[in-house]
Amino acid sequence: MKLKITNLIMKWKPNIVVQFLFSLMVVGLVSCKEDLSTKINSDASPQYPSLILTKQGVKDIRANLGNIPIFDETLAAAQAEIDLEIEQGFDVPIPKDYSGGYTHETHKKNYVLMQKAGVLYQIFDEEKYAKFVKDMLFEYAKMYPTLPIHPKPRSYARGKLFWQCLNDSNWLVYTSQAYDCIYNYLTKEERNTLEKELFKPYADFISKENPQFFNRVHNHSTWGNVAVGMIALVMEDDSLLQTALYGLKDINIDKKLKDNDGGFINQDGQKIGFFANLDEPFSPDGYYTEGPYYQRYAMYPFLIFAQGLQNKKPELKVLEYKDGVLLKGVNALLNLSDADGDFFLLNDAQKGMSYFNGSLVSAVDIAYHFGGNDPELLSVAKKQGEVTLDDAGLAVALGIKEGKTKPFVKKSIELSDGANGDKGAVGILRSGNLELVHKYTAHGLSHGHYDKLSFALFQDGKEVVQDYGMARFVNIEQKGGGNYLKENTTWAKQSIAHNALVQNEVSHFQGKYDIGSKYHSDKYIFNVDNDSLQVSSAKEENAYPSTKLHRTMVTIKDSDYDNPYVLDIMRVASENSNQYDLPFYYIGQLMQTSFEFTKSDVPQILGDSNGYQHLYKEASSISNGENIEINWLANNRFYTYSAATTYNDEIIMARIGANDPEFNLRHEPTVILRKKNTKDAVFVSTIESHGTYSPVSELAVNAYSNIKHIEVVLNSNAYTAIQIVTNKDKTTVFVISNQNNDKEAEHKLTISNNEVSWKGAYALKEIN
Amino acid sequence: MKLKITNLIMKWKPNIVVQFLFSLMVVGLVSCKEDLSTKINSDASPQYPSLILTKQGVKDIRANLGNIPIFDETLAAAQAEIDLEIEQGFDVPIPKDYSGGYTHETHKKNYVLMQKAGVLYQIFDEEKYAKFVKDMLFEYAKMYPTLPIHPKPRSYARGKLFWQCLNDSNWLVYTSQAYDCIYNYLTKEERNTLEKELFKPYADFISKENPQFFNRVHNHSTWGNVAVGMIALVMEDDSLLQTALYGLKDINIDKKLKDNDGGFINQDGQKIGFFANLDEPFSPDGYYTEGPYYQRYAMYPFLIFAQGLQNKKPELKVLEYKDGVLLKGVNALLNLSDADGDFFLLNDAQKGMSYFNGSLVSAVDIAYHFGGNDPELLSVAKKQGEVTLDDAGLAVALGIKEGKTKPFVKKSIELSDGANGDKGAVGILRSGNLELVHKYTAHGLSHGHYDKLSFALFQDGKEVVQDYGMARFVNIEQKGGGNYLKENTTWAKQSIAHNALVQNEVSHFQGKYDIGSKYHSDKYIFNVDNDSLQVSSAKEENAYPSTKLHRTMVTIKDSDYDNPYVLDIMRVASENSNQYDLPFYYIGQLMQTSFEFTKSDVPQILGDSNGYQHLYKEASSISNGENIEINWLANNRFYTYSAATTYNDEIIMARIGANDPEFNLRHEPTVILRKKNTKDAVFVSTIESHGTYSPVSELAVNAYSNIKHIEVVLNSNAYTAIQIVTNKDKTTVFVISNQNNDKEAEHKLTISNNEVSWKGAYALKEIN
Repeated sequence: MKLKITNLIMKWKPNIVVQFLFSLMVVGLVSCKEDLSTKINSDASPQYPSLILTKQGVKDIRANLGNIPIFDETLAAAQAEIDLEIEQGFDVPIPKDYSGGYTHETHKKNYVLMQKAGVLYQIFDEEKYAKFVKDMLFEYAKMYPTLPIHPKPRSYARGKLFWQCLNDSNWLVYTSQAYDCIYNYLTKEERNTLEKELFKPYADFISKENPQFFNRVHNHSTWGNVAVGMIALVMEDDSLLQTALYGLKDINIDKKLKDNDGGFINQDGQKIGFFANLDEPFSPDGYYTEGPYYQRYAMYPFLIFAQGLQNKKPELKVLEYKDGVLLKGVNALLNLSDADGDFFLLNDAQKGMSYFNGSLVSAVDIAYHFGGNDPELLSVAKKQGEVTLDDAGLAVALGIKEGKTKPFVKKSIELSDGANGDKGAVGILRSGNLELVHKYTAHGLSHGHYDKLSFALFQDGKEVVQDYGMARFVNIEQKGGGNYLKENTTWAKQSIAHNALVQNEVSHFQGKYDIGSKYHSDKYIFNVDNDSLQVSSAKEENAYPSTKLHRTMVTIKDSDYDNPYVLDIMRVASENSNQYDLPFYYIGQLMQTSFEFTKSDVPQILGDSNGYQHLYKEASSISNGENIEINWLANNRFYTYSAATTYNDEIIMARIGANDPEFNLRHEPTVILRKKNTKDAVFVSTIESHGTYSPVSELAVNAYSNIKHIEVVLNSNAYTAIQIVTNKDKTTVFVISNQNNDKEAEHKLTISNNEVSWKGAYALKEIN
Repeated sequence: MKLKITNLIMKWKPNIVVQFLFSLMVVGLVSCKEDLSTKINSDASPQYPSLILTKQGVKDIRANLGNIPIFDETLAAAQAEIDLEIEQGFDVPIPKDYSGGYTHETHKKNYVLMQKAGVLYQIFDEEKYAKFVKDMLFEYAKMYPTLPIHPKPRSYARGKLFWQCLNDSNWLVYTSQAYDCIYNYLTKEERNTLEKELFKPYADFISKENPQFFNRVHNHSTWGNVAVGMIALVMEDDSLLQTALYGLKDINIDKKLKDNDGGFINQDGQKIGFFANLDEPFSPDGYYTEGPYYQRYAMYPFLIFAQGLQNKKPELKVLEYKDGVLLKGVNALLNLSDADGDFFLLNDAQKGMSYFNGSLVSAVDIAYHFGGNDPELLSVAKKQGEVTLDDAGLAVALGIKEGKTKPFVKKSIELSDGANGDKGAVGILRSGNLELVHKYTAHGLSHGHYDKLSFALFQDGKEVVQDYGMARFVNIEQKGGGNYLKENTTWAKQSIAHNALVQNEVSHFQGKYDIGSKYHSDKYIFNVDNDSLQVSSAKEENAYPSTKLHRTMVTIKDSDYDNPYVLDIMRVASENSNQYDLPFYYIGQLMQTSFEFTKSDVPQILGDSNGYQHLYKEASSISNGENIEINWLANNRFYTYSAATTYNDEIIMARIGANDPEFNLRHEPTVILRKKNTKDAVFVSTIESHGTYSPVSELAVNAYSNIKHIEVVLNSNAYTAIQIVTNKDKTTVFVISNQNNDKEAEHKLTISNNEVSWKGAYALKEIN
């Protein structure tokens, strides 16, 4: 496919001919063996690359190569990978499969390979990398115009290469970068062919032809907007860029339309385009309303596009948009991870996703490079062990090399939800090596769970009291094509699947997205000024009409003991008599209970619907009104859950796994405390990590709870007071004002014959 | 309690007086502030310490201190620990509790502290350490004569400090070492007091007063013998030493008497004493018949006593006994661990026990020091990260420091069972990163399980197909005082709890120890000459009268694929029609099955007894005669179990946990292949580790089996042939002679119209 040089020159404008002649002089005889047709254009558009890698960046990288360990290692790994792939050859198959299947995984692999090969071409200036990208692009350009809608029907927005436009968008976000890197390697004709046959129709398909996908506020649309925006930046197509930034104009979408997850497509029809996706789901603290699992997924397109905009349209000042929300988002996301870097499970989320994900490598590097070189980010980058192969990654590599690294210290933090930060929050209490995540957010769009005021507890990066996460095995084809399983709706989203209060066996907001998405919980107190007494308290007054929920979670350090413990006060007040269930999803092997229970020969299904149909009741007990204690072992640690009970409370020991015909669920235990025919109630419990076990030395240390007794000594509209007696006979009372969260307010009360006075919304007092 | 020096000197022999005077000259004025009464005796018996630490050892250690990192670190840790304990003071409480309880754990802690403090005294020559031991010993000497039998009644041999003589013996083994270390620090009167009030009655109690404990071949007796032997060596009491070495003479024990685990106390009454315990349970390969979990436990007393004997009675040549079986035992034990050092679970065994256990630190160091300085042992010591604080530990520390370390490479190995190596064996096939443990041993004394020809599979140190281990939480008081739970008998020991064939829902040998302990399985083939085709084959003809079992386990490396796979051929031939069950205890989350199944709303209990009462049947299917495939995910790897079936075979998907009133069991899954009304049958399956999943990149690689089809193409008395077709349409046949295991025999057969000839007992042939 050699082009005739003379013909080519004839088509060019004079100044380009001059450039060409000059370049011939420079390249001179050394490159006489090369195919000139490919070199001819190398300086035709001198501004490339300019999207993510820049010309200056390439120069700097080349100058530092061999001298920037983390960059060199990442580069070597990428080169080894791509060299092998070039040797093995690639495939561009006719689309056929869901995620996990061959065609899906191959197209996914291809865009990653192209992006990397483009970078390698720039850094090493070796033609084979450019040729690999070019050959693959032309295969796509040949196939794309022939493709119908993807044959798999499950999505509300079916793609062409993939079963959903979302994945088509992923492809374009990466491929745009590859195109930018080899732009100058291609002839104008080649670029014309690619743009006409592939990129423009591709961009049109995921936008104009799928407005229900493109014109939303949703992570799907973010990918769509960014995909179109990235290719627009490379093609320097300003009209397309406007579509990406501000959405498709004059499109009417049925406002009642929903996606496959049950989320509305675009309820008000107003918020569209990239900036709307930045406005809406991010709170001023950088919390993304769908939760960290999807924030991680969304951060990549947000930040990679921001990087592209910063490079090509700096006048838009995208990183300063909404008071720098994108950079705050990186900080929020890192704070939403446990000690091992695994993200907390809020809403739909798969366990094991962490800041080691590639999108977080980009996020951290971009935040470092464009966000003022925060040295704490370098320690995260160091743990990640890789950097992006671009200007940002170079900056990080140089920072690490120059010894600028400081530890990224995660502290207790409250991250507000809602575009204006007024739709609840996530409260994270960090005390000792415990991390408690208290959720009092808005619904979280279509990925939200019905779990108002729920919590999860981690120790040293391990789950202690779990959030189930989602019922999905992402990209594992054997399990429903790797997509959401029906148990995600029937189980994982339901209230009873969480450490959340359930009234009358019905999920919050009746488990209806239309209702749930209208409301949010409310912050009441988040105060972590005193490391030994940290408080997160929030209210929820819409989950059940006529019923008000108020949960206060406290971490307390008692100097008598090694570890802090958690105090959980879940108040409920209703106009009607109800049944209240409060599940406790401990992880591990039950050791002992303080109460007698009756275990059924065969487990019984706990209920008919709202998630109850997925629980087996294995054993139960009726409370005599004493405290109950549940002692368990997990990860070689001993834990105890102690709860105050009322006479006749039911204790249900249950296990997940009923009505699970495909074995999609994990068979894990829970304990449910049930109060019947009650208007107002308060569930009070403590959670302690008090001891350890070593299977090597077989030594059990502090196997039992340190708490002798807990008791609700006062519970009124105005105040709740909990008395805690430890095994060392130290008696303390935690008291909280339920109506007045003013930090300056003075309170005085008589509790258990002790006069207690304090300033602020709550206090912990030792009494004798 | 100061003694008068003059009086003391009067009692000595003249040469000791000279020594004393000399020592006064040397110590001279620098020690004038010290309490001379304690120094006086420092050379009274110059041969101390001589049991484990020696005088020369102490000298060498002091000379190298600060220059032998692993020793220095271990010493520093011990010193920090003991200094803290000295500061906090000790307690010698009146015995009361089972294991896990305060008094038990305190006495256990005390003997470890005394042993360490004794060593510190020798190395640092600081009196506080000696005084700590002395003071504690005198507390024991004061209490011991007043003690009745321990109040907890569960043991067949109740102790005094502890609920069983076993723990009393542990105490004496450690305390003897402490006594040896401070021997010279004590006055003769003090020694007399200790020996008369404490050590002699203590030794008598665990021997003469508990012959049912002392006169056995069992790990209990080993501890008893060694405890008595150790104190005898320190006290230089030859009569007591004879008792330790050769047992209590002229004692009649009821031959039908059993211990708490159901093991006979001493069925033939002949084998007693330390040497008998060396003769009997160890095979010539060093395999200990109870399995590695108890071998680990027994190795410490065996080796520490051997070390003591070597130092004080070298003429006994204990380490050469039975062709050096003790040192072979260390090698066997290390080979009985997985890639992480965790011991394989054979018979009663708690998961997580590993060569990081302190007794293995001793074992490795002693084996290195007294066994010819094998440099491979140094790499194990390095991983252990600590050494014994004695001559042996010094040798290891010096070896490491001098760079002598070589990797300890675990290879495929067969370890015979039985005193003469003729009672079956354990076959371990190691291929790639898979480790397959095939059990065809004798019963394993009272800790044996009814699991003839069972197997377990590990990959990279993680369980893939599990052995349940024991139903016990060792030293966790909440769970039955930390002792064996009743589910150990009703579940963990039963055949159905293992990957073992079960006939008519009855365990091997009817689950009766009296029968099982009479028999053993028989080796048939163990050949690992060809790394790509390793074979372990064994027969069992006594588990069920009139039924013969023959299982062949093969690891095959197919160059088309990354990982080797396992071929499992379980043949059964009976005179009668029976029901055969073959369970498969995969660990992980079920992904997919190739067959349809019906899941019950509520699980049903699988059977009434023999362990079946602990299994819930969750789902089942009836085979159409095709292969069945079960694909699962564990530790981010994809596995597939493929089994050939016969029309009407039942496939039962079950879960552990029925009839478990205290939640003592782990709720883990199994699949049981059931053939009914059958005389002869062959169960054939393959197990593959074929793919990986990353929850971080969410990439699934090779999620499906590489095997298209397996088929029994021939099964006769003489031969069994299995045809395996891979997804690359490569067809191979594995053929084995069932009667002739001669390596030189020539075979010729027509299989699937192909004439196949080979030499030796088996072959793998590619056919077209």
